[in-house]
Amino acid sequence: MKGTPIITLLTDFGTRDWFVGTIKGVIGRIDPRAVVVDVTHEIEPGDIRGGAFALAASYSFFPRGTIHVVVVDPGVGSSRKAIVARTENFSFVGPDNGVLSWALAREKIKSVHVLENPQFFLQPLSHTFHGRDLFAPVAAHLSRGTPVRRFGRRLAQYVRLPWPEPCRTRSGWKGEVVYIDRFGNALTNLEAGRVKVPGGEGQWIVEARGLRCPLVSFYQSVRMGRPAAVLGSSGFLEIAVNGGSAAKNFKLRPGTPVHLKRIRLCSARS
Amino acid sequence: MKGTPIITLLTDFGTRDWFVGTIKGVIGRIDPRAVVVDVTHEIEPGDIRGGAFALAASYSFFPRGTIHVVVVDPGVGSSRKAIVARTENFSFVGPDNGVLSWALAREKIKSVHVLENPQFFLQPLSHTFHGRDLFAPVAAHLSRGTPVRRFGRRLAQYVRLPWPEPCRTRSGWKGEVVYIDRFGNALTNLEAGRVKVPGGEGQWIVEARGLRCPLVSFYQSVRMGRPAAVLGSSGFLEIAVNGGSAAKNFKLRPGTPVHLKRIRLCSARS
Amino acid sequence: MKGTPIITLLTDFGTRDWFVGTIKGVIGRIDPRAVVVDVTHEIEPGDIRGGAFALAASYSFFPRGTIHVVVVDPGVGSSRKAIVARTENFSFVGPDNGVLSWALAREKIKSVHVLENPQFFLQPLSHTFHGRDLFAPVAAHLSRGTPVRRFGRRLAQYVRLPWPEPCRTRSGWKGEVVYIDRFGNALTNLEAGRVKVPGGEGQWIVEARGLRCPLVSFYQSVRMGRPAAVLGSSGFLEIAVNGGSAAKNFKLRPGTPVHLKRIRLCSARS
Repeated sequence: MKGTPIITLLTDFGTRDWFVGTIKGVIGRIDPRAVVVDVTHEIEPGDIRGGAFALAASYSFFPRGTIHVVVVDPGVGSSRKAIVARTENFSFVGPDNGVLSWALAREKIKSVHVLENPQFFLQPLSHTFHGRDLFAPVAAHLSRGTPVRRFGRRLAQYVRLPWPEPCRTRSGWKGEVVYIDRFGNALTNLEAGRVKVPGGEGQWIVEARGLRCPLVSFYQSVRMGRPAAVLGSSGFLEIAVNGGSAAKNFKLRPGTPVHLKRIRLCSARS
Repeated sequence: MKGTPIITLLTDFGTRDWFVGTIKGVIGRIDPRAVVVDVTHEIEPGDIRGGAFALAASYSFFPRGTIHVVVVDPGVGSSRKAIVARTENFSFVGPDNGVLSWALAREKIKSVHVLENPQFFLQPLSHTFHGRDLFAPVAAHLSRGTPVRRFGRRLAQYVRLPWPEPCRTRSGWKGEVVYIDRFGNALTNLEAGRVKVPGGEGQWIVEARGLRCPLVSFYQSVRMGRPAAVLGSSGFLEIAVNGGSAAKNFKLRPGTPVHLKRIRLCSARS
Repeated sequence: MKGTPIITLLTDFGTRDWFVGTIKGVIGRIDPRAVVVDVTHEIEPGDIRGGAFALAASYSFFPRGTIHVVVVDPGVGSSRKAIVARTENFSFVGPDNGVLSWALAREKIKSVHVLENPQFFLQPLSHTFHGRDLFAPVAAHLSRGTPVRRFGRRLAQYVRLPWPEPCRTRSGWKGEVVYIDRFGNALTNLEAGRVKVPGGEGQWIVEARGLRCPLVSFYQSVRMGRPAAVLGSSGFLEIAVNGGSAAKNFKLRPGTPVHLKRIRLCSARS
């Protein structure tokens, strides 16, 4: 691998304790050249879907060759497998519990291997902290150029989380909220690449629970404190409140149904 | 530029989601040598004055040539301009909403340019996340040595936030609280460089709301739980409670009036 | 020193303000090659024991030669000393208030020096922020190769925090909770290296307050919501609740007594 290898970390370890620090120490011992970038460590403990969505929304912004390490791993120490997946542009390292699957679904996969060769683990391997003892050293060896086949046998399958597919309605698309961000914006499964909005933003509205708001180009199109839907920066339709929290104001949460509808113009002629 | 370029990030994006991670990914794709340093991402959402103060209190501690990226940008997507300002020692990149202005007021400015050349933006440019799509790539191109004139035309003016000037009183100085830090210390607009305290610390007191406390050299000069004022590490007079939160205990917040007064010694002769 | 020097930071400064950012700026001005790694900045303000434990649990995972900077320093500005300790594998920089002592107790110490040579401090030295003005520049000079004797005179002693020694009982070991992590796991002073559990996990239980739970290999050995004790990843016996917070559910906190007991098998024959 040429240039400075980047290893990203996306976990539910939080930043209150020393957990992430020791992961970086372990990486530094194996590949001192690797640059470690935190994506986030504040996924809700054990929230595999939250981690899967955060990865899918972020991984593609990194340089080609980046190694993405994802540790949202409520089954650590159980029989769930640990895997590395190579795609055309990236490598993904994490537990085989679906947390990698929404990103992998967008990539052209070259291979998936089990991480089972203890030669690449910290010794003794703890039962409770594979982020430090297994995923971090494997990622660091990978960034040094170790071929993936050395970590373990090839897998034909990996665990896939079902993605809630949006469905067409007479007047538009039905979907659901999939992620609430720190601003209280509710991101949905309605993707800009898939859900076309002919006629442009002025002709569409979004309904969710009691809420009804226009599709606009940016939050400031509505008055302070008012809700609006935008095709957001991560590529998903999101519901926001200008200067406030849509999730709090309208009790939106993952799973809340959302309906994107074309406005019927009473006296439309054209 | 010689040596390793540093790009700092000061935003209100928080660390709960993947936003800051993707900013670092975008920078790494354009200038892999750049070292990215987080100043903070926990400015209150949209709090331009909080961001302006945090920048003014921190920017000068970085190496010459550092590129400071500040994204507290409640007007993202609207008609507010994006700018880069070059000073004798640093570059500043951010929205032209005043968030850069308290730092710039302390620097000798060489030029200010609009960021309007889409060649340096991520494509497509989102309406809601210029931190990732506009400010990050411009900063990375700057760190690679792109001349500022290539980003856009030169500006004669930029938006300045009014700084609450302290004013003299018969017995000292009147000012106000401008920032509350995580310890609950209340930082004021009374600057050590400007507000002289002849006679030294023993001769001055500070009043704010119901509070009345001595000016001391360090917090431990007063008993645990007691308030004190110090000329703090960021160069501003601040009110603290030894082992507690001055802001909570005395309901101090940005805008609370503060009076620094010389003690009248009843039988002073000299 | 060969390769890239690592400087770690473990503080109670939080990440809400610009404090940690300026520490990194100061280090970058003195040794641009140094890679700074955050261990945590969320030690409770002034919690020396929390900082000491976090350091002891993390320092050894970093590469040989790493410089650990620890700033939990409620006595900043008072007469407490600032020190650098060199051990066979690491350097430790911080206030001489005991925060370094639990890590040092595990290391072979080569020397301890006072930091008293103002040539290596930021000027002017603030009374309230030695993290930025004293510890950061000293660590950066150390990483550039400055010999420790130049910082100040050699010390024969340093402040040691008493470590709560576990004691033997007829049926096992008595100890106490020493740290609560972000998951609500209660880490105890019962160390895997010292407290042997002959017969393996199936034969031991842990009692603490009203709680009584089995010693298991990993959390998933018990049902969701149920407590269990494990020999945790940091080398200490810890009490956890599968999918919950042991500290909250059972009101565990530092100092809570813990008893690790061998189960009496009524009709044991073998």
